[in-house]
Amino acid sequence: MRHVAVFDAYGTLFDTQGLISSAEAQFPGRGEEVVRLWRAKQLEYTWLRSLMGQYEDFWAITRASLEFACEALGLSLSDPARDRLLEAFLRVPAFSDAAPALSQLCARGVRCCVFSNGTRAMVEAAVSSAGLGAYVDAVLSVDDEVRVYKPHPAAYAYVCRRLGIQPPQALFVSSNGFDVAGAASYGFPTAWVNRRGLPAERLGAAPALVVQDLLHLAAQV
Amino acid sequence: MRHVAVFDAYGTLFDTQGLISSAEAQFPGRGEEVVRLWRAKQLEYTWLRSLMGQYEDFWAITRASLEFACEALGLSLSDPARDRLLEAFLRVPAFSDAAPALSQLCARGVRCCVFSNGTRAMVEAAVSSAGLGAYVDAVLSVDDEVRVYKPHPAAYAYVCRRLGIQPPQALFVSSNGFDVAGAASYGFPTAWVNRRGLPAERLGAAPALVVQDLLHLAAQV
Repeated sequence: MRHVAVFDAYGTLFDTQGLISSAEAQFPGRGEEVVRLWRAKQLEYTWLRSLMGQYEDFWAITRASLEFACEALGLSLSDPARDRLLEAFLRVPAFSDAAPALSQLCARGVRCCVFSNGTRAMVEAAVSSAGLGAYVDAVLSVDDEVRVYKPHPAAYAYVCRRLGIQPPQALFVSSNGFDVAGAASYGFPTAWVNRRGLPAERLGAAPALVVQDLLHLAAQV
Repeated sequence: MRHVAVFDAYGTLFDTQGLISSAEAQFPGRGEEVVRLWRAKQLEYTWLRSLMGQYEDFWAITRASLEFACEALGLSLSDPARDRLLEAFLRVPAFSDAAPALSQLCARGVRCCVFSNGTRAMVEAAVSSAGLGAYVDAVLSVDDEVRVYKPHPAAYAYVCRRLGIQPPQALFVSSNGFDVAGAASYGFPTAWVNRRGLPAERLGAAPALVVQDLLHLAAQV
């Protein structure tokens, strides 16, 4: 059977720091803190809404978290500015190692898939904009049907159902510690791409592999 | 029927900023950032473990989040220092408005209860240490039986079951926006004690009442 690697999108293949230039254009000198709070709140809202059983899709959550972040930082956000910043998410750049690493894996016959909290439209736009389309066999979104965010087990179960695999048959790759913990807890072998040298999360499930970037991952798979 | 008010503990009755002096004694000049990251990670772990279906009690989560915070900040945490900081949580000070507000409500016949993510031992220790015991009719913990953290609906359902009430029969009081949203989503009338003038959370359920502190709450109930 062909090997499968499942990649998280934001933070793993795509660099949300790449949104800073768009935020900076709107809020000179404040772009970095806007993006930091925007991203933190975006994740928080996925967890909270999943716990509450009050799903909203990732586009709506991305808008809500941007509005919260700007209000918290005392920044006035017009509707057109908000829409411009949201649209930057559709062209979020890939990390420079993403294309070469995926290319190497594909060349060795690994089936590379993307599994994201983002809606299909968001993730497909980013994959296409970053020129990763040739390497990506399938884009899967929690929005397709489960409508609950990572790290809920139902999200990881969907990956298996959709790809027709059992968890031990795929390597789950993420830079997000909580995502690695959720996938490992569900039974996937996991690789944590710890780009920023963060401490390990204390969530009970350790990754099988820790690498500093995607090229180191490709070299070890 | 007697009116019931259900109070969240940490951030609402108890001031987690009061942990800074203990953190400062251990890590001079770094106490504030330790407590900020410790508290943020503590909440994050409650949400993530609830989503993963991997419950650990709040004492264990409080320890794990403290260890993460110190490692992330490059601070070495010995076992005795860790235990000293954890024990500070048992004596976390109440906000200065907590005792007079609860006293006023009790005098008017309101039944005041505390409902917390914290274990019973943690919350009872804090209530007693802060001298709030005379005003608190019942301490309820998610650890009593539901073993899932706020804002999961099962947590709020437990409050109703345990107190023998329907949600509209109690006022749910919290400074934590996510807790207010979870309680409101479950059907409680809610009061958000917005001590720090934060923006409203975008989580779909607005509080019935927004007050700046507990004395303003007592005046309006």
